[in-house]
Amino acid sequence: MMPPAPARDPGGPLAGVRVVDLTRVLAGPFCSMLLGDLGADVVKIEPPGGDTVREQGTRVEGLSWYFAQFNRNKRALTLDLKRGDHREVLARLIARSDVLVENYRPGVLARLGFPPERLAELNPRLVTASVNGYGSTGPYAGRPAFDFIAQAMSGFMAVNGTPESGPLRSGPPLTDLIAGLYAALATVAALRHAERTGEGQAVEAAMTNGMISMMAYLSAEALATGRPPPPTGNDHPVASPYGLFHAADGPFAVAPSTPRILRRFMEALGLGTLLEDPAYATNADRLENRAALNARIEERLAGRSVAHWLETLNAAGVPCGRVQTLPEALADPQALHQEMVIEADHPGHGTVRMTGFPMKLSATPCALRRTAQDMDASREEVLAELGYDAARIEALGAASEG
Amino acid sequence: MMPPAPARDPGGPLAGVRVVDLTRVLAGPFCSMLLGDLGADVVKIEPPGGDTVREQGTRVEGLSWYFAQFNRNKRALTLDLKRGDHREVLARLIARSDVLVENYRPGVLARLGFPPERLAELNPRLVTASVNGYGSTGPYAGRPAFDFIAQAMSGFMAVNGTPESGPLRSGPPLTDLIAGLYAALATVAALRHAERTGEGQAVEAAMTNGMISMMAYLSAEALATGRPPPPTGNDHPVASPYGLFHAADGPFAVAPSTPRILRRFMEALGLGTLLEDPAYATNADRLENRAALNARIEERLAGRSVAHWLETLNAAGVPCGRVQTLPEALADPQALHQEMVIEADHPGHGTVRMTGFPMKLSATPCALRRTAQDMDASREEVLAELGYDAARIEALGAASEG
Repeated sequence: MMPPAPARDPGGPLAGVRVVDLTRVLAGPFCSMLLGDLGADVVKIEPPGGDTVREQGTRVEGLSWYFAQFNRNKRALTLDLKRGDHREVLARLIARSDVLVENYRPGVLARLGFPPERLAELNPRLVTASVNGYGSTGPYAGRPAFDFIAQAMSGFMAVNGTPESGPLRSGPPLTDLIAGLYAALATVAALRHAERTGEGQAVEAAMTNGMISMMAYLSAEALATGRPPPPTGNDHPVASPYGLFHAADGPFAVAPSTPRILRRFMEALGLGTLLEDPAYATNADRLENRAALNARIEERLAGRSVAHWLETLNAAGVPCGRVQTLPEALADPQALHQEMVIEADHPGHGTVRMTGFPMKLSATPCALRRTAQDMDASREEVLAELGYDAARIEALGAASEG
Repeated sequence: MMPPAPARDPGGPLAGVRVVDLTRVLAGPFCSMLLGDLGADVVKIEPPGGDTVREQGTRVEGLSWYFAQFNRNKRALTLDLKRGDHREVLARLIARSDVLVENYRPGVLARLGFPPERLAELNPRLVTASVNGYGSTGPYAGRPAFDFIAQAMSGFMAVNGTPESGPLRSGPPLTDLIAGLYAALATVAALRHAERTGEGQAVEAAMTNGMISMMAYLSAEALATGRPPPPTGNDHPVASPYGLFHAADGPFAVAPSTPRILRRFMEALGLGTLLEDPAYATNADRLENRAALNARIEERLAGRSVAHWLETLNAAGVPCGRVQTLPEALADPQALHQEMVIEADHPGHGTVRMTGFPMKLSATPCALRRTAQDMDASREEVLAELGYDAARIEALGAASEG
């Protein structure tokens, strides 16, 4: 495994950007993590009980690796926003920051004393990024959000699965992460505008909206025809052969995506002549006789290992790959070469491993500049930066414990 | 449906940014579409045959709505990069642009005459964004990429599905779109760096890497325990009750995500006392007796409609929602309020409908500033901007036809 950061860190492309992070759980923390990965200074504000994710998932030497993953590259400050003096700390932080990220339900930030007009007064250049379930206006704006629900509402579940399984949610909380990613993109774009014009603004990404936008040709077809696409399973609805096939020692995925690649696939299997057979000559023929064609292919594949076929077919330019479990995917030579698993010393918690940076930047790379902090670990440092002297820092802390 | 753009378009946050777009099909075009949605001027370069997506999916009045979706907010210029005079057009475009987006297989852009050192020579401030399958270095860098394969390799398929279905791909080409979204974020961040320092760079996002990064707590668990998480289906692995339930007229999704919300759910059903029953008192009890508990819940739900329960449960703060087909999702009142379906006159092709903008920006909104262009439609305009006079424009065109 390679070291997570270059020897001399040139800083990320967002170096110098200050982010106040009022997020918890997943969609919001993912957004602020991305900004931190890109070099922004993120101060994560937690309520006295802390982000509940600190207690979730497997903990190693007292540390939730789930929390560690999504809260790297952030400092940690605990504030009790029911207290006036702690709200004042937040106000000072907002005044000197470029970005505020929050994933409360719409309206909650205002009720905490920070409606849009107050934010603008504190900092007219501020970019306020909100991640939520349905968007902050409209008939469902007040509904509680949750990934599973956004998967259901967006139309995603209805196309995920097979005719036998029926609508199926996907395990990873995709709508959280997609909304967080959109919010990060909108934030950095709005930051550019603010840096050029001095004008801040509110940006927003909703889980349901984000997932709707990922439906690609399925949504285009639904809009053009009015018909719901069926759940897709592993067969391609309009291409054959395509899908999971079985070698001697297991299944693997093959996607011969064009006629030219299909020919290469069949020839690599020594089945090129089948494409002259009237039963398999056109894609329509092959869809109609999919079962028979797949049987011919599998008969041939069964003689050799997955490894053999992956080497042969990739060399022939046929997209194919192993169906990997997550531990396999995270130990894959390419994933390791791409540093998609990084590990770091975590003071007080041994070594932590987490997924790496899918954004590669040649001059200003993403880096693990700071592991997730213990609760309130950055308190003195952040308060001092805000101009609090030792006595005030102590007063804010003491009262918080009282 | 609301109009797609405000009456007086203030321009997007990327107004003034010039993008040369050497992408086709999906992952790359999605990246450049996002930049265009945010206000950049995108010039899409197509080979003489055009992007194959122009011919894919249902066509309405001669227009592929799939193409129209992913190529809005772009101008269209056809270049034959086998020709020296056409490569010179591309060189001039690169010299005056801020961003180049490409999704060739690694190495192809260099073979077309534009290796990194040439790009830097033409334009030291250029941000070059590459979207590919596995990343441009490492043992699989040269493999052909495809969404289905990236779903398989990333570990996603192994957790999507049910124990009965086994590993299952997801219908929407998620790995394409996630890579495109990451590439757009990295691009805008790198653009900030270039605008501040004059230093361009190469940024990259790969489909497999992007999907690995979306595995959230599943990857954290896999890294912490070494064990592969099972396919998740619709039951939550560690929470009960949770999942799809059936009202009188159909199924809907319920996610009582905390003990407090679970209590609200059970009380809204008139089943609050069940939580005092030793069989259902703790989450462990409820997991063990999931089938019996679900039966009690479904018995109660069966008396009323989905609409009734959605209203009741959302009012009680219980995350829940309808499992919508795509046409239902795209006609949902909230989706319409959020302008997640937009329609526009498409000169020569009637009216086109497409999904809207999941990024909402209050001051500089995304907008449909230009519908997808016919092949080469922006040719004279772009060439004139590059300083070609009428005679040269004609020569470039005439020769191309000859």
